[in-house]
Amino acid sequence: MTATEDVRLARVALTWLAEPGTWAVHRLVDELGPVAALDLLLDGGAPDRALRSAVAVRSAGEDVRAVAEQALARTERLGARLVTPEDDEWPVRVAELRRLRLAGTNRKVDLETAPPLCLWARGAWPLAQAFDRSVAVVGARAATPYGTHVATELGYGLADRGWTVVSGGAFGIDSAAHRGALTAGGLTVAVLACGLDRPYPMGNTALFDRIAETGLLVSEWMPGAEPLRPRFLIRNRVIAAATLGTVLVEAAARSGATQTLNRAIGVLRPGMVVPGPVTSAMSVGAHELLREEPKARLVTGIAHVLEEVGRIGHDLAPPARAPERLRDRLDDEATQVLEALPRRKTLALESVATRAGVELRTAMRKLSMLEELGFVVRRDDGYALAPSGASRPA
Amino acid sequence: MTATEDVRLARVALTWLAEPGTWAVHRLVDELGPVAALDLLLDGGAPDRALRSAVAVRSAGEDVRAVAEQALARTERLGARLVTPEDDEWPVRVAELRRLRLAGTNRKVDLETAPPLCLWARGAWPLAQAFDRSVAVVGARAATPYGTHVATELGYGLADRGWTVVSGGAFGIDSAAHRGALTAGGLTVAVLACGLDRPYPMGNTALFDRIAETGLLVSEWMPGAEPLRPRFLIRNRVIAAATLGTVLVEAAARSGATQTLNRAIGVLRPGMVVPGPVTSAMSVGAHELLREEPKARLVTGIAHVLEEVGRIGHDLAPPARAPERLRDRLDDEATQVLEALPRRKTLALESVATRAGVELRTAMRKLSMLEELGFVVRRDDGYALAPSGASRPA
Repeated sequence: MTATEDVRLARVALTWLAEPGTWAVHRLVDELGPVAALDLLLDGGAPDRALRSAVAVRSAGEDVRAVAEQALARTERLGARLVTPEDDEWPVRVAELRRLRLAGTNRKVDLETAPPLCLWARGAWPLAQAFDRSVAVVGARAATPYGTHVATELGYGLADRGWTVVSGGAFGIDSAAHRGALTAGGLTVAVLACGLDRPYPMGNTALFDRIAETGLLVSEWMPGAEPLRPRFLIRNRVIAAATLGTVLVEAAARSGATQTLNRAIGVLRPGMVVPGPVTSAMSVGAHELLREEPKARLVTGIAHVLEEVGRIGHDLAPPARAPERLRDRLDDEATQVLEALPRRKTLALESVATRAGVELRTAMRKLSMLEELGFVVRRDDGYALAPSGASRPA
Repeated sequence: MTATEDVRLARVALTWLAEPGTWAVHRLVDELGPVAALDLLLDGGAPDRALRSAVAVRSAGEDVRAVAEQALARTERLGARLVTPEDDEWPVRVAELRRLRLAGTNRKVDLETAPPLCLWARGAWPLAQAFDRSVAVVGARAATPYGTHVATELGYGLADRGWTVVSGGAFGIDSAAHRGALTAGGLTVAVLACGLDRPYPMGNTALFDRIAETGLLVSEWMPGAEPLRPRFLIRNRVIAAATLGTVLVEAAARSGATQTLNRAIGVLRPGMVVPGPVTSAMSVGAHELLREEPKARLVTGIAHVLEEVGRIGHDLAPPARAPERLRDRLDDEATQVLEALPRRKTLALESVATRAGVELRTAMRKLSMLEELGFVVRRDDGYALAPSGASRPA
């Protein structure tokens, strides 16, 4: 199932009219659907004054629908895509933000915790599959060598066992976690707080390119959106809710990373914290959480993390052979399509669809994904298994 | 109040007949008193077979009472003393070992947890006062520079605020805690697992001498007793029970120090654990405790420790001036005696007693203690304040 164009347009417009996470907008969409909700807001019918004036300021002299159309066009030019709750690949777990319960945080932030209205994605993996078995690893930008080491090991270890490593793409711990996952040839997702055409920080451009190649860049903000300070905190709730658990490695007192961990606990995910030397300012936030948040769980490595998030027995077993990992994560249709391809022979699209027993449109979509992931190559006369066999990645 | 000679002799003999902490002996003493309990055991009347045969083996060909008498003579020659539950200075908190509840430890060790029958002490401070406001700092012998630093800081900080620092005199964390306390000019107690004439390890002889000078060496074993391996675990329960709380700084998995912490929690004292780098084998035991023992409390420094053990408001205030600390800890009678001494004048014993309003015998006892602590000097014609004024220590 995919969203109709007017629904997609309305969701983009709503995301532009008010910052993602705004409950008043989320409730309107819940009641009326995105198209009617947009109409109501543009007619000045917002249920509360704050939203009404925010919409008025934002839309003054602007054709909001045209802005949304331009954003969608720009998305396509970027090689990115819009994903909405109507799409099959929507990461449904983010809906659990509705049930988020937070203790001891300030009210203003609490208000910005509604589920996202839509997400931008760049990278071949469907979001739902990428997040299915995923763990967030977050922490300080000003990480110490100790923290960097621990985050790299966790990123590597999780990816090596077939888990997706999710983080925020920042310097320090985030980067180390992403890099660890990439080194293991695994899947990693950077959830950004700005448009996908300007991933922040710029110094991580090469890293973002590598992530987009084999993993995913994800954002709630349309292309062109700036990485404004409050957006990082808004973004954090998606990291916390889309994953099965969050690990904090190094954090200064009351930092953004400790907030992500509180969000994870708030949506009933394991909130895991790696301790460090008590002499390090970069572990103060971690130790504060372990002292003050009864549900924060001390973990010292991959084994403890898997104990918390691994509900399936084999997660505790030795890792499967690396080349099979990405393939194991394909959905049923993609697997059928891949298995329909004969060894050393090219097959026309129609034949692939017939042999796989799927619709032509589905075969096309899956083949395109398989091509991007390097499982399949496109030839003039059809599709064939990639030369390296039916598996990669690098 | 002091114990009669036959009670003291009986307690020493009982301690020699069976290892300290043996419940069967403790219960007999509870029911019959030490003298009758000893008679019963020497007559082969031990209530259980294990104890009966242990007593038989131990006393074969030996005059048990003569052994005890020799031990007491040796104690005196050492400049040490025997302290029994009948004495005013008995550290009453150790009786709470009766209520010790332990989970998940092996049974054999659990049996060796009765309160001590008597203690040997070397050093001027009465045990009760020394332990009154005391915290144990324990941990690995093979400490890292990180652990040594943290233990030294804790020892210093506690002593600097007038707390007694109690530990086991071992290399590594124990030594660092003792040294920190000594550097602050504070009171530190080493509870040993062998006779006070052969404090173990030998490499710490200079440290033990410094501790005995201004603090205390304490043991449940008579002079000459060897530091046998099981004795360290038996000893640990006294460290845990005599103090107001125990802090663990670095420990390998399932080490003796983690056992001390379990004992502390078992007698309802705060069991505090300092975390460390997860990359350090010397923090594995600490992190295990924090993960598996719900009552283990993560602490990162002196402020957290005082929060746990400091029931009096001013413990959280800035430290008092150092020279006054030891003086503040004198008991009422000792303070009266000290204040009875005029500045720059020598006073005869009888005059001191009269001015202090205490009995002659009490004045003598307190003056002797004050002299050992360096507050008072003895002259040919009586007592005077020490030249440095009414306070020391070095």
